[in-house]
Amino acid sequence: MKLINKEINDKYTDLHLFNNFIDQKVTLKGNIHKVRNMKEFSFIILRTERELIQCIFSKQVSNFDIFAINEGDFVIVDGIMVKDNRSKSGYEIQINNIEVLSSLSEDLPFTINSKVLDLTTDTKLKYRSISLRHPKERAIFKIQEGIVRGFRDYLYKQNFTEIHTPKLVSNGAEGGANVFELDYFGKKAYLAQSPQIYKQAMVGVFDRVFEVAPVFRAEKHSTNRHLNEYISLDLEMGFIDSYEEIMKMETAMLSHIISLLNDMYRNELNLFNVELPIINEIPAISFNEAKKILSQINPSIDEDHDDLSPEEERLLGKHAKDNYNSDFLFITKFPSSKRPFYTMNDKENEMQTLSFDLLFKGIEITTGGQRIHDYEMQLEKLISRGLNPVDFENYLIIHKYGIPPHGGLGLGLERLTMKLLNLNNAKLASLFPRDINRLTP
Amino acid sequence: MKLINKEINDKYTDLHLFNNFIDQKVTLKGNIHKVRNMKEFSFIILRTERELIQCIFSKQVSNFDIFAINEGDFVIVDGIMVKDNRSKSGYEIQINNIEVLSSLSEDLPFTINSKVLDLTTDTKLKYRSISLRHPKERAIFKIQEGIVRGFRDYLYKQNFTEIHTPKLVSNGAEGGANVFELDYFGKKAYLAQSPQIYKQAMVGVFDRVFEVAPVFRAEKHSTNRHLNEYISLDLEMGFIDSYEEIMKMETAMLSHIISLLNDMYRNELNLFNVELPIINEIPAISFNEAKKILSQINPSIDEDHDDLSPEEERLLGKHAKDNYNSDFLFITKFPSSKRPFYTMNDKENEMQTLSFDLLFKGIEITTGGQRIHDYEMQLEKLISRGLNPVDFENYLIIHKYGIPPHGGLGLGLERLTMKLLNLNNAKLASLFPRDINRLTP
Repeated sequence: MKLINKEINDKYTDLHLFNNFIDQKVTLKGNIHKVRNMKEFSFIILRTERELIQCIFSKQVSNFDIFAINEGDFVIVDGIMVKDNRSKSGYEIQINNIEVLSSLSEDLPFTINSKVLDLTTDTKLKYRSISLRHPKERAIFKIQEGIVRGFRDYLYKQNFTEIHTPKLVSNGAEGGANVFELDYFGKKAYLAQSPQIYKQAMVGVFDRVFEVAPVFRAEKHSTNRHLNEYISLDLEMGFIDSYEEIMKMETAMLSHIISLLNDMYRNELNLFNVELPIINEIPAISFNEAKKILSQINPSIDEDHDDLSPEEERLLGKHAKDNYNSDFLFITKFPSSKRPFYTMNDKENEMQTLSFDLLFKGIEITTGGQRIHDYEMQLEKLISRGLNPVDFENYLIIHKYGIPPHGGLGLGLERLTMKLLNLNNAKLASLFPRDINRLTP
Repeated sequence: MKLINKEINDKYTDLHLFNNFIDQKVTLKGNIHKVRNMKEFSFIILRTERELIQCIFSKQVSNFDIFAINEGDFVIVDGIMVKDNRSKSGYEIQINNIEVLSSLSEDLPFTINSKVLDLTTDTKLKYRSISLRHPKERAIFKIQEGIVRGFRDYLYKQNFTEIHTPKLVSNGAEGGANVFELDYFGKKAYLAQSPQIYKQAMVGVFDRVFEVAPVFRAEKHSTNRHLNEYISLDLEMGFIDSYEEIMKMETAMLSHIISLLNDMYRNELNLFNVELPIINEIPAISFNEAKKILSQINPSIDEDHDDLSPEEERLLGKHAKDNYNSDFLFITKFPSSKRPFYTMNDKENEMQTLSFDLLFKGIEITTGGQRIHDYEMQLEKLISRGLNPVDFENYLIIHKYGIPPHGGLGLGLERLTMKLLNLNNAKLASLFPRDINRLTP
């Protein structure tokens, strides 16, 4: 018997505390990102988990053969940290020794130490575990971590409970097409398109809930904004007076995310030429207003009276930027015909719903709204749509046994990441994206 | 156009600050958990999102009809908070008014305001959105939230990056049976059994990564410890000297979880008659030692020389408690034959691996170990198992293009929750469990 203790005896220097280590011995772990041989010495750029560190080989202080070190090696570097105002980090490492832990068996399929990774999206995705070693490609996902962290942080503070709902379900939440089907021990099962009915059910238990989890859509689109599996940031909250409370919650949550990114992910953000939006308030226009504005911009654009096309969303995004100086725009009160059966109708006009989308730089990133909590009202709406209440027995339990007025939203993580960093494809904001032609790597 | 701001104008009193509200007006939201009519007044127990609050109806101060209030109603309560040392919370609410927001359309299928919810597991699971309203059933998931929160908190501090890997994959990670299969636009796809190959790939990018996500196992078991969909807490870390570093990381991470639970989830823990384990160090014995101990306990127990049966795990758990006073026990160096193809063999004995399980109260909650990082070594191990390297092309990319020495683990969230709270079934630690007979609700 042996005892395993919890003392994590870290042999590596914590670079976040680098000021403590000036003129001292340090031990770093990382990848040889670049070697540049000068006349008298060599620059070795070490890629650590979040940074590029300038290291110096010189015959005076370094006890190893520079030609034994290759780009791509994973190494441990021992050296002295010295102040250097020319380097980005404010310091450089004079290397005493390098230990090579592992090397390439084959040359990399492309260079990853250029400033920009100039490859097609397809190549980036095919060699995902290599292309993500590029500092800028990798930074997308560090920033994405910050988005999720900000989402959770904010909601914990607002007394939300984190939940985990099943992805294997007996019928699609939105009741219909575009679901992946599979055999579940002889029964038909589907992959959940959204945690919708489960998060509603949990409002009666925890009042406010959220979930960060994959959702699955069997859509045959192959566009730069669709993914067949994506991460949905979902929340649902009880005791609301109005669907506008959900919009306020989203505004405050997004504002928190932005300030967390500014505080904790500055290095990564600096790799992108973007200014983060400042969110104090977000303009909101109704669907009808939006259609009016669109008809003024281009009278022939209206293809579907009851919905907004991607082109219409783009134009509305531009309108919000030009007129309200906002990257964000809420569109409210969508027609009832285009919203799911659980959406509450507007009492003032039964043709429209207490719902909203949030556009960010002209693309829909959120759908949300108030849900029906009254049993009779929900029964009526199901029947009016030709749906059979018997098929919704498990769902209707929450209405039958009482649920407070409530509503919520779903936010697509990859789309938010994409637009925040001005990427041209949501696939580049997914580590291993799934689309109609892509199931690997 | 209207502006939605981020001021969340909370009309409800924050009970965490209750000391600020003594003798003041408060507004609470919640569910009528229990009404008890006395001669001169009535007790109304309000169930808020985390607590039971004692409220008093009396004709002197209350302006509503007590007979209009029913158990199960979702309500808003206005009243005065007064000190009361007999109530658990230290205060009670003298109600002025109650507004009923929604009521039951049908009587609840069972009583949820008893001290213990005395129902079969099947009934609890069938009426999940009702049974979870019971304070003790609900507390399981609040504590589960704390476990996940502690896991993430600790790993963030240790410079891990949170990742999201795909659940739709082109082949099963562990290469074999027990995977759910589905049609993916005309191709065969599978539901990921683990994020194994993806988290390994991300070690080359971020060095240390973790993920909290569902995994899927098409196992036909129907036991109290199996689920066909469960939440796996995964981590993977680079630059390790030994698989024992991963065990240390787990020890420290579990210790952090326990102290977070003690700090933030005390109310919920008090509903369970459990003492949280104190984790400073965890005993570790090798697989061979474990088999020796077992043969001393019961010479006829060894059914499989290369693995541990549930009964053997139970006996080892008891052994650890009796001999080392520990609820936890690491078993190390499992035989190579029973560990997956990516597990590194022990140089000192090629028949065994640099791997471990963690038992908690006699049940396996974690499997982990060091992985092969060398390309040739991985090729050899695949071939020696009769596997075709061509089928592992996407996996081998990380070895071909270099990856540091690394390892990691997966921890089953529901099992940890179950054993922490001494539940008798892992299904009770899943909001909506999936088993061979259960795909609803």
